Amino acid sequence: MLLDQIKKENDIKSISPTDYEALAEEIREFLIQKISVTGGHLGSNLGAVELTMALHLSLDLPEDKIVWDVGHQSYTHKLLTGRREGFETLRKYGGMSGFPKRKESACDCFDTGHSSTSISAGLGLVRARDILGEKNTIVSVIGDGALTGGMAYEALNNASRMETNFIVVLNDNNMSISENVGGISKYLNNLRMAPKYWDVKEGIYYTLKGMPKCGPLVEGIRKAKNSLKQLVVPGMFFEDMGLTYLGPVDGHNIEELVRVFGEAKKIRRGVLVHVITEKGKGYEPARRHPARFHGTEPFDIQTGLPAKPRTVANYTDIFSTVMTKLGSRDEKIVAITAAMPDGTGLKRFRNIFPDRFFDVGIAEEHAVTFAAGLAAGGMKPIVAVYSSFLQRAYDQILHDVCIQDLPVIFAVDRAGLVGSDGETHQGIFDLSYLSSIPNMHIMAPKNKWELSDMMKFAVKFGHPIAIRYPRGTAFDGLKEHRASIEFGKSEMIYKEKEIALVAVGSMVKTAIEVRESLVAEGYSVTLVNARFVKPIDEEMIKELCKDHKLLVTMEENVASGGFGEKVREYLDSLKTDTKILSIALPDAYIEHGNVDILRKEVGIDKDSILQKIVENRQTLDM
Amino acid sequence: MLLDQIKKENDIKSISPTDYEALAEEIREFLIQKISVTGGHLGSNLGAVELTMALHLSLDLPEDKIVWDVGHQSYTHKLLTGRREGFETLRKYGGMSGFPKRKESACDCFDTGHSSTSISAGLGLVRARDILGEKNTIVSVIGDGALTGGMAYEALNNASRMETNFIVVLNDNNMSISENVGGISKYLNNLRMAPKYWDVKEGIYYTLKGMPKCGPLVEGIRKAKNSLKQLVVPGMFFEDMGLTYLGPVDGHNIEELVRVFGEAKKIRRGVLVHVITEKGKGYEPARRHPARFHGTEPFDIQTGLPAKPRTVANYTDIFSTVMTKLGSRDEKIVAITAAMPDGTGLKRFRNIFPDRFFDVGIAEEHAVTFAAGLAAGGMKPIVAVYSSFLQRAYDQILHDVCIQDLPVIFAVDRAGLVGSDGETHQGIFDLSYLSSIPNMHIMAPKNKWELSDMMKFAVKFGHPIAIRYPRGTAFDGLKEHRASIEFGKSEMIYKEKEIALVAVGSMVKTAIEVRESLVAEGYSVTLVNARFVKPIDEEMIKELCKDHKLLVTMEENVASGGFGEKVREYLDSLKTDTKILSIALPDAYIEHGNVDILRKEVGIDKDSILQKIVENRQTLDM
Repeated sequence: MLLDQIKKENDIKSISPTDYEALAEEIREFLIQKISVTGGHLGSNLGAVELTMALHLSLDLPEDKIVWDVGHQSYTHKLLTGRREGFETLRKYGGMSGFPKRKESACDCFDTGHSSTSISAGLGLVRARDILGEKNTIVSVIGDGALTGGMAYEALNNASRMETNFIVVLNDNNMSISENVGGISKYLNNLRMAPKYWDVKEGIYYTLKGMPKCGPLVEGIRKAKNSLKQLVVPGMFFEDMGLTYLGPVDGHNIEELVRVFGEAKKIRRGVLVHVITEKGKGYEPARRHPARFHGTEPFDIQTGLPAKPRTVANYTDIFSTVMTKLGSRDEKIVAITAAMPDGTGLKRFRNIFPDRFFDVGIAEEHAVTFAAGLAAGGMKPIVAVYSSFLQRAYDQILHDVCIQDLPVIFAVDRAGLVGSDGETHQGIFDLSYLSSIPNMHIMAPKNKWELSDMMKFAVKFGHPIAIRYPRGTAFDGLKEHRASIEFGKSEMIYKEKEIALVAVGSMVKTAIEVRESLVAEGYSVTLVNARFVKPIDEEMIKELCKDHKLLVTMEENVASGGFGEKVREYLDSLKTDTKILSIALPDAYIEHGNVDILRKEVGIDKDSILQKIVENRQTLDM
Repeated sequence: MLLDQIKKENDIKSISPTDYEALAEEIREFLIQKISVTGGHLGSNLGAVELTMALHLSLDLPEDKIVWDVGHQSYTHKLLTGRREGFETLRKYGGMSGFPKRKESACDCFDTGHSSTSISAGLGLVRARDILGEKNTIVSVIGDGALTGGMAYEALNNASRMETNFIVVLNDNNMSISENVGGISKYLNNLRMAPKYWDVKEGIYYTLKGMPKCGPLVEGIRKAKNSLKQLVVPGMFFEDMGLTYLGPVDGHNIEELVRVFGEAKKIRRGVLVHVITEKGKGYEPARRHPARFHGTEPFDIQTGLPAKPRTVANYTDIFSTVMTKLGSRDEKIVAITAAMPDGTGLKRFRNIFPDRFFDVGIAEEHAVTFAAGLAAGGMKPIVAVYSSFLQRAYDQILHDVCIQDLPVIFAVDRAGLVGSDGETHQGIFDLSYLSSIPNMHIMAPKNKWELSDMMKFAVKFGHPIAIRYPRGTAFDGLKEHRASIEFGKSEMIYKEKEIALVAVGSMVKTAIEVRESLVAEGYSVTLVNARFVKPIDEEMIKELCKDHKLLVTMEENVASGGFGEKVREYLDSLKTDTKILSIALPDAYIEHGNVDILRKEVGIDKDSILQKIVENRQTLDM
């Protein structure tokens, strides 16, 4: 196998050019085989095989640097830098990350995970290089989807008119996770479709379809404009921003890619190399179902079907269902996603109510202020977004939604530990950053029915409100506990005395298990479902203080600024003897791995909580 | 006076066109006179007089809607909508805001304050209008400076190829607060300078300098490209994004503006009207010193000089001085600002070390990740930014700086209450949102010398760290207390017993006053300067518990997630009898007004704190 010859970075340079195609084939087979077992990002990696090979052939790693935007497309890069063994433990606890990690390899120069950061980071590396008088080449590889994020544009604006080399590779597969959106996407589409004409003079490549008509220009302009735009100066959008545009280049032709990268390295400016790739290339199911194979669970290679078909509903499914119901009952309900119609479960809403559905691209900032505008215009907008991506819009929530007290609903999916995507994707900060914002309200459902009830409550509420729920199977216990949602009120599930467990959302399920163990040991244990994180239910807490010695708050969020701190502060004001034990996540990033393992690791699983309670019990002399 | 005829919105329509110029003149005189007394934003308002008049002539308010980006340029709009009297109390406590406020007028359709939000909000209003079947016109007015913010681009990307009318007015004065930066700025500059040719057919205006040469095009293209770009299809950058470009238009020619707005209203697409204005127009000092007159204190109209020249240093001055010192000692130090070289005090650093200074435009997200890239490349970046604007980069701090534990220093200016700019600018959340981030560290100086010492500590520290300091005069008391900064250690200033005041940054000054009053009443009062907010000095707190009954934490930040909560949590873990009283800001937005009034209003002034301590004292039976 050719792959056997690649033990570390730059080994690819010993491969004969005649074997490039075969190596690409081997890499694809390797990736399909491995990911079919471990799960992981497939489509984007299959699309970037030749592009990555060409970069490795053109650069000297680790001196030269590649910043991978988002980073899920870096599998071939990992393979070519001696991490083949790592694929056995890909995304597993203690194993290889699915994203670039500086601590994993000297060839990973910058950690990524969220979208649209690579040009900013690359530009930082470029400026550092120049100040330090170094001579290496810096390349940022960004997808066309990530170009819908404003940060990428801020960076391009700053990469303009530099008198130094900086290569931005636009890996254009005409896709975000789902179909790409917006003006820029359509613009790139036009560029993609233009037949190529190569003018290698000065290392500048242009695309020309033909000669624009000459004639009385003033009259001709209007007519000729659209063709002129695409033909005379392709990539002018980027040239207008002060970058040199090279392309489009066939992203599966290694020879052509190497030639263009060679030219790009010579230019003392910011250069954008427009590379056309195909997501899922070489594996038909991934080509046909790009969204499903963006990030996939283990699958059967023959059929492309999931190895273990999902049989139980997750919270996203529940959200999806309730959204279609709400949408049909109230025409003011509109739904917004930042490039995640599938991931957030809004696809069904989109199909039924296309006029009230907005996919804004990977643009969380815009998504939130757009929602604020919709609310100011009389609508009831629901922004469905992953917890870790909503971090992008902290200021917009604070400044555009909450100062004006606008009724925007945030459906915060993937809140809490998410597992195999790791540090960059854990949704463990939202209770903190949302709590700090005046006029914001926060709920978390204990089970699938409660998510539905909370959504119904939220659309009537008339103020900013977030509902946070975790990734994975929706809890279907406590079905009988379905008292209607009242503003700011928690729910008493088991009323006893001595110890009170007050659990937030996903932790209610754990609290049930903890309680069972404690009861079995003879304790009297109350269980309260918090329901509201902001405001907390002060009345309930006051009541609990009357006949409980210990109050245990439980949340899947960092302690700082979380639910426990709010309860603690209120308890203090009561001058009560009741003590508090806060179960929350530590002040640390949490790596990838199975969620059950992670919970144990950070001390929020049943056994860890039991142990902490028992330790406290001794202190309390119960 | 013509202004006397304008009592409410649309009254301007009764003014004869021959009087427009005279009215504009009156408005300018009015603004100069009023702002010279109250202070406020002058330059941008002088530049937008005719533009605002033309919009009011072209629209029917409040049915039609104008979203003002940032909003500091809305003074003429306020005048034309019946708020002339409000200028007596402009930016004063309880008086008229310097920004658009929905609660102030039905003609203010969306509150703004931060940059680059108006297109997103306007687009929300447009979609709401269309879903509800309404027919009004929505206009977003955005400056060229705000176009350097990525959010504006996210919104433009979404405004593309709509089949409905939406007008974006680009108010191009070729300035942010300071000089504008980046590729887009240069691009607009080229458009500005092109002589105009008006082709009114179909309501589309184009600028043509002349005819591009006809000849063998393939050879000619390279040469002609730059001229072609500007001449054949001006505004193509925007057209590429799927918008219709109209312009450039003279922003001081009301007739021309009204004509173009009339055309723009007819187009069933997103339209960008490029309006050229002059910042500070009509008042020579404001034209000559745009940065100083962007937001000004009261000034003498004749000379343009401040009414009360500043004689004492503020924290920004101190920061400015220490930066030049640090810069000359260490060539790895680089400084980054998001369009605020003057405001942050980095101008001197820029002048001395132009190669190590980066003004990235109004692009906080890019600023932070760019800094992360610089740090990954071996530099020591210092990001100088206002507290409320750093909110924009919450995710970048968390995701790009802190996961990788990169040594980026955040110099967080305007932290705490800022006064007359009000809700959108209060820097009262940073301790919370920064505290929630793992690997982040936070300091706050008690006085001007300590800011300097903390900066020196920070550049040696080697991890992410923020130093937050307030707007206004730097405290110059406690000069003798200058023990060197040790990581995580607070500073004992007066060691007694019974009550311990533990104050953060700006609150140390207040704590001294509080302490003096308490001591005068016979109490024994310890005073500790916290220095570090994250991590807190656990050793000191433990020590204080030994001989203090009450620990009073004091911070100019919201309570949720702040310093007090951290101390409270630690105290709880100590099982001590020492009680805690947290002085912090309430969970609410705080409006504009004199900072001393605001402090009283929210209960963090000396008297309020004294009262709370005395109340607690009774509870404690001291």
